[in-house]
Amino acid sequence: MHPQVASLFDNVYEDLAAAALEFIGTAFFLFFGLGGIQASTAEDTSSQPPASAIEHVLYISTCMGFSLLVSAWLFFRVTGGLFNPNISFALLLVGSLKPLRFVLFCIAQLTGAIAGAAIVRGLTSAPLSVNNFLQQGTSAAQGVFIEMFTTAALVLSVLMLAAEKHEATPFAPIGIGLTLFVCHLFAVYYTGAAMNSARAFGPAVISGFPEPHHWVYWVGPFLGSLLGASFYATLKHYKYWRLNP
Amino acid sequence: MHPQVASLFDNVYEDLAAAALEFIGTAFFLFFGLGGIQASTAEDTSSQPPASAIEHVLYISTCMGFSLLVSAWLFFRVTGGLFNPNISFALLLVGSLKPLRFVLFCIAQLTGAIAGAAIVRGLTSAPLSVNNFLQQGTSAAQGVFIEMFTTAALVLSVLMLAAEKHEATPFAPIGIGLTLFVCHLFAVYYTGAAMNSARAFGPAVISGFPEPHHWVYWVGPFLGSLLGASFYATLKHYKYWRLNP
Amino acid sequence: MHPQVASLFDNVYEDLAAAALEFIGTAFFLFFGLGGIQASTAEDTSSQPPASAIEHVLYISTCMGFSLLVSAWLFFRVTGGLFNPNISFALLLVGSLKPLRFVLFCIAQLTGAIAGAAIVRGLTSAPLSVNNFLQQGTSAAQGVFIEMFTTAALVLSVLMLAAEKHEATPFAPIGIGLTLFVCHLFAVYYTGAAMNSARAFGPAVISGFPEPHHWVYWVGPFLGSLLGASFYATLKHYKYWRLNP
Amino acid sequence: MHPQVASLFDNVYEDLAAAALEFIGTAFFLFFGLGGIQASTAEDTSSQPPASAIEHVLYISTCMGFSLLVSAWLFFRVTGGLFNPNISFALLLVGSLKPLRFVLFCIAQLTGAIAGAAIVRGLTSAPLSVNNFLQQGTSAAQGVFIEMFTTAALVLSVLMLAAEKHEATPFAPIGIGLTLFVCHLFAVYYTGAAMNSARAFGPAVISGFPEPHHWVYWVGPFLGSLLGASFYATLKHYKYWRLNP
Ligand SMILES: [Ca+2]
Ligand SMILES: [Ca+2]
Ligand SMILES: [Ca+2]
Ligand SMILES: [Ca+2]
Repeated sequence: MHPQVASLFDNVYEDLAAAALEFIGTAFFLFFGLGGIQASTAEDTSSQPPASAIEHVLYISTCMGFSLLVSAWLFFRVTGGLFNPNISFALLLVGSLKPLRFVLFCIAQLTGAIAGAAIVRGLTSAPLSVNNFLQQGTSAAQGVFIEMFTTAALVLSVLMLAAEKHEATPFAPIGIGLTLFVCHLFAVYYTGAAMNSARAFGPAVISGFPEPHHWVYWVGPFLGSLLGASFYATLKHYKYWRLNP
Repeated sequence: MHPQVASLFDNVYEDLAAAALEFIGTAFFLFFGLGGIQASTAEDTSSQPPASAIEHVLYISTCMGFSLLVSAWLFFRVTGGLFNPNISFALLLVGSLKPLRFVLFCIAQLTGAIAGAAIVRGLTSAPLSVNNFLQQGTSAAQGVFIEMFTTAALVLSVLMLAAEKHEATPFAPIGIGLTLFVCHLFAVYYTGAAMNSARAFGPAVISGFPEPHHWVYWVGPFLGSLLGASFYATLKHYKYWRLNP
Repeated sequence: MHPQVASLFDNVYEDLAAAALEFIGTAFFLFFGLGGIQASTAEDTSSQPPASAIEHVLYISTCMGFSLLVSAWLFFRVTGGLFNPNISFALLLVGSLKPLRFVLFCIAQLTGAIAGAAIVRGLTSAPLSVNNFLQQGTSAAQGVFIEMFTTAALVLSVLMLAAEKHEATPFAPIGIGLTLFVCHLFAVYYTGAAMNSARAFGPAVISGFPEPHHWVYWVGPFLGSLLGASFYATLKHYKYWRLNP
Repeated sequence: MHPQVASLFDNVYEDLAAAALEFIGTAFFLFFGLGGIQASTAEDTSSQPPASAIEHVLYISTCMGFSLLVSAWLFFRVTGGLFNPNISFALLLVGSLKPLRFVLFCIAQLTGAIAGAAIVRGLTSAPLSVNNFLQQGTSAAQGVFIEMFTTAALVLSVLMLAAEKHEATPFAPIGIGLTLFVCHLFAVYYTGAAMNSARAFGPAVISGFPEPHHWVYWVGPFLGSLLGASFYATLKHYKYWRLNP
């Protein structure tokens, strides 16, 4: 092999091991996050009175946000705990992830999401009710923008809290999980708040792509990665740490 | 220029860059905070049963408090993450912000709030339902005092947790965000809990100043800045760290 | 004066200043904590549908727990942020508070609680609905035990997290506030969860002692201080840090 | 005694003292956690309107998760704050707990759970409503798997956050408590979310084993300990810290 190509494969065993663990971590994150959403539907249909929509959205946001907080904390010192191809892509863009690892991570995260959704399906004896879809009245363009902005926020939290090294870095998973939580509080109603193509893809595979506009959850988060990574690169270029004396 | 005047403009490029980032940060904070409130109204009107008022207030408090927690954390090492002209004013009073930067920050925070509210309006296909107003039965004087006390608490959290340097300083955004959360739990019902003239101003501009008593959200927080900064200055004057041996 | 008596007054100016700040801090803590409870009653009576009791209790617990978390964090490096005569008493028992400061702190905390409750009353145009009382079906003896155990837990959190010095000590207010939160989730329904004689006393003074069994909130927390401080003293006596190698 | 046998009893006094404190800590954890669940049932049956199932599950999850967060924080530097024989078993498997201490801890945790449940029963004048049971439609096999996966997550949080030494280790109780919280949000509906045989056993003893399938809460968590400890051992064997350069 050409030496430059060979260097891409320098750490291929570590890359494969890390990808295997990202598979497990993504399945872990989405098993608990999506499992909580699945449970909330079962809770709501099996008892009286039904929950209000606000209650339902708060529950979903808590499940997803705190599942990521916890999962990312447990895997933080192992693989980084990304569990999200759009985060992987942003890290590739800013140079924190090498190309081979990026590709392996994306595969691991997409298949891990399928695995997580499949376990939820298997353990709960009910059709999956965890797919992302656009609320009536939300256009595809609005959906793309909402997914773009929320994904950019999540990307920025990973870059500013985890990729940057400072005293609070070991606690980055707390801030990243709470960012997902806050974005959900806004976006669950409108788009279901994917912010992660794997989170939309996994349950869609298991349940046969029942929702139209699935593409929104690929285009929106992809643009969000670009936006978040560009903003971060600009901050670095202008040496942001000199602004706050 | 007279040398003393010139010194005001010593770091004018840094000041402009910091103000541009405060614009983005304020829009970020209010996009998610106000967006969550906007979503809660949509959630409540589009489904049965409606939420209780307590549920609604808890949701609003969570959106605003945790949006600030997260936004301030992401921007903490960039601009300080103030997003609030009343915080800027308090920092001017205690000497942590120079006059030029104070003026630029206020402009950035007020226009950033307009931008945040505009994006919420554009992405949600519904009239804004996020303006601050006085609850029936709450007088303007009560409103001013409530805004004054809650803003003073927020100012004090910034001064004691972020401006003072100690081991927990890197985690100040957590305490500041939770202070906003706690103040909301009390004040949302009575005044809508601005504690920040920009937060009241932004959506009012976008929706045509629909509520009377908008001045309450300028006078109350202004007095709160004075109260919070004076209390902090008194603590420093008497060297508070000698009280707790 | 006899030298031993004089030594009690060695730091009398610091003691007076610290007590004045405990007055302010206690008023701050209870203004937001009790203010949130007062707001929740107003929220519930002014709109439809009413909240469920679980919603109401969760709201109250969040107001009190997070108000203490935030207040204690802001005042932690000033006076310690006790805001509670039963905590003061426990610190006297274990030798962390000298007798004069203990007496001044108790006066400050009891009058601060009256001030906090008075401000809530003045700003909300409604009778106070924040008094502690025993739920129908809860006997006075059960009330005393519930207040004793919950106060002991709170005392233990102050002693293990704040009085003991270790890496997490600067974050003690988070753990102490969450302890109050957890104790409320259990005790609000049965006793209103005082865990602090000043918290029960302040609103009772303002509203004319409307509830029988007010004495429960003095006897229960007093016994809780004894229990918590004794357990801590036992841990220290047996050098607890040698148990976990 | 044979020297190798004798060495098992080297620290027998420390082991007995630590077990006595695990007894107290487990009773503390479950008194507040189960007490909150007991209160939520009383809240719901004594007032109108009743809570939705989602509200109820969120309340239960908060009680259990935050009770562990707080209890484990208070006892973290004393005994480690395990309060769970399945955690003890995992620590035995990875070599962090010696056999004698393991046996004593299990006895302390099981009897501590009985004590905690008994105090709740005694202070609340109502039959215990805190037993784990399988939701209609959840098979025993599903229950075992749900308990296995959730327990494995809890075990992994203890091993990665508390057993491994790094900068965030003093804050491990926060992550461990939130892991219990997240697992509850999924599992409360299906199995009642024991994740701890002592938590299922204590109330069952006090209320006469009223639920069938009690064995599920022994088999599931036992398998979870094996799964969590094996995964951790694999991570260590392959030196996981080399994967994330
Ligand atoms: Ca519903
Ligand atoms: Ca409503
Ligand atoms: Ca009610
Ligand atoms: Ca409800």
